Amino acid sequence: MPHLVIYYTPNLDDAIDMRQLCRTLADVMLAQTDEAAKPVFPRGGTRVLAYPATHFAISDGGAAGRAAGGSGDYAFAYLNLRMGRGRSSAVHQQVGLALQKACETFFEPVFQQRHIGVTVQIDEGTEVFDVKLSNLHPLFNKN
Amino acid sequence: MPHLVIYYTPNLDDAIDMRQLCRTLADVMLAQTDEAAKPVFPRGGTRVLAYPATHFAISDGGAAGRAAGGSGDYAFAYLNLRMGRGRSSAVHQQVGLALQKACETFFEPVFQQRHIGVTVQIDEGTEVFDVKLSNLHPLFNKN
Amino acid sequence: MPHLVIYYTPNLDDAIDMRQLCRTLADVMLAQTDEAAKPVFPRGGTRVLAYPATHFAISDGGAAGRAAGGSGDYAFAYLNLRMGRGRSSAVHQQVGLALQKACETFFEPVFQQRHIGVTVQIDEGTEVFDVKLSNLHPLFNKN
Repeated sequence: MPHLVIYYTPNLDDAIDMRQLCRTLADVMLAQTDEAAKPVFPRGGTRVLAYPATHFAISDGGAAGRAAGGSGDYAFAYLNLRMGRGRSSAVHQQVGLALQKACETFFEPVFQQRHIGVTVQIDEGTEVFDVKLSNLHPLFNKN
Repeated sequence: MPHLVIYYTPNLDDAIDMRQLCRTLADVMLAQTDEAAKPVFPRGGTRVLAYPATHFAISDGGAAGRAAGGSGDYAFAYLNLRMGRGRSSAVHQQVGLALQKACETFFEPVFQQRHIGVTVQIDEGTEVFDVKLSNLHPLFNKN
Repeated sequence: MPHLVIYYTPNLDDAIDMRQLCRTLADVMLAQTDEAAKPVFPRGGTRVLAYPATHFAISDGGAAGRAAGGSGDYAFAYLNLRMGRGRSSAVHQQVGLALQKACETFFEPVFQQRHIGVTVQIDEGTEVFDVKLSNLHPLFNKN
């Protein structure tokens, strides 16, 4: 944890650099510090994975967009961050707002060009079993 | 919201028109009205995204299906709808039954031809942060 | 149910046989029995689906891995099992540990070769609507 999974319409691959968005959002998460000035997220455990849908249907399929002078080729991205339990509500809001701000900047050119919806949601995990196998974490816990 | 994500085995792409299923299910959701005769879901926020798995394993891998005279090439679709909080239990059931009925119709030819499982589940979101950036919603909120 | 979805970085497709991992994990689940010596999971309802991400960002992007003498090409797999409600905590732990053990064996060669994180989490479903359409279950309920 944290795991940020991005579900999106494949037409976005022509409009933005999704790989760069993944990197940007990972960096945003890694930069977050909590009330005690400690990193919110473990460096070795921060991941962003993005998945273009193979098939999709958005809203009315394009009619209203075309009527408004657009292409009707709606785009959509759903960013779902799952983080471990125990952070404060203030930290949840801080992380969410930081991701929101990054998305506003990143998607701004797309908003100028087409009809698009971007949703950012954070879930606090409620898993009943949880284990990590990792030789990544030790890279950052040595010193 | 709502977001309906379909996880499925890629052998279904040869059996049904998954793109059409996405459209059909989006239309089913857009047609739902609540106890006050208002739309259950926002028109600009209704999305269906479908993802064929790259790798998969289903049940016993095919032995029982072949023993029953089938191909053993099992198919599977998992429809997971996530909706916002605050709808009544009656609305949850109504939406679920409407999706179920649409699936029964859509998958009926597949059920005649092969062994398949289709699961429809609705989750009520428990997100701790939630924000939407959208120029889609205003298309439907003008009047 | 159960549904095990594997989200992973595509570089793992060069390192392991993900299809075989799906089969192995399905078999692990099918082999689980509860306190009453009954199968934990229905044979016809056990599914594993694996999805390589199209884009991703992991941890610091590779710097620490390269500094430690590795390639910096981090790998990651997130195994998320969702099961129905009502099993005991002991069963949750048993299933989780069995999946963990299978992953330890399966990923051991990868851990020798590169920096990788593998997370196994089990969620107990909290769905507000749930229906199964299936001609798979009857294959195993005949006798």
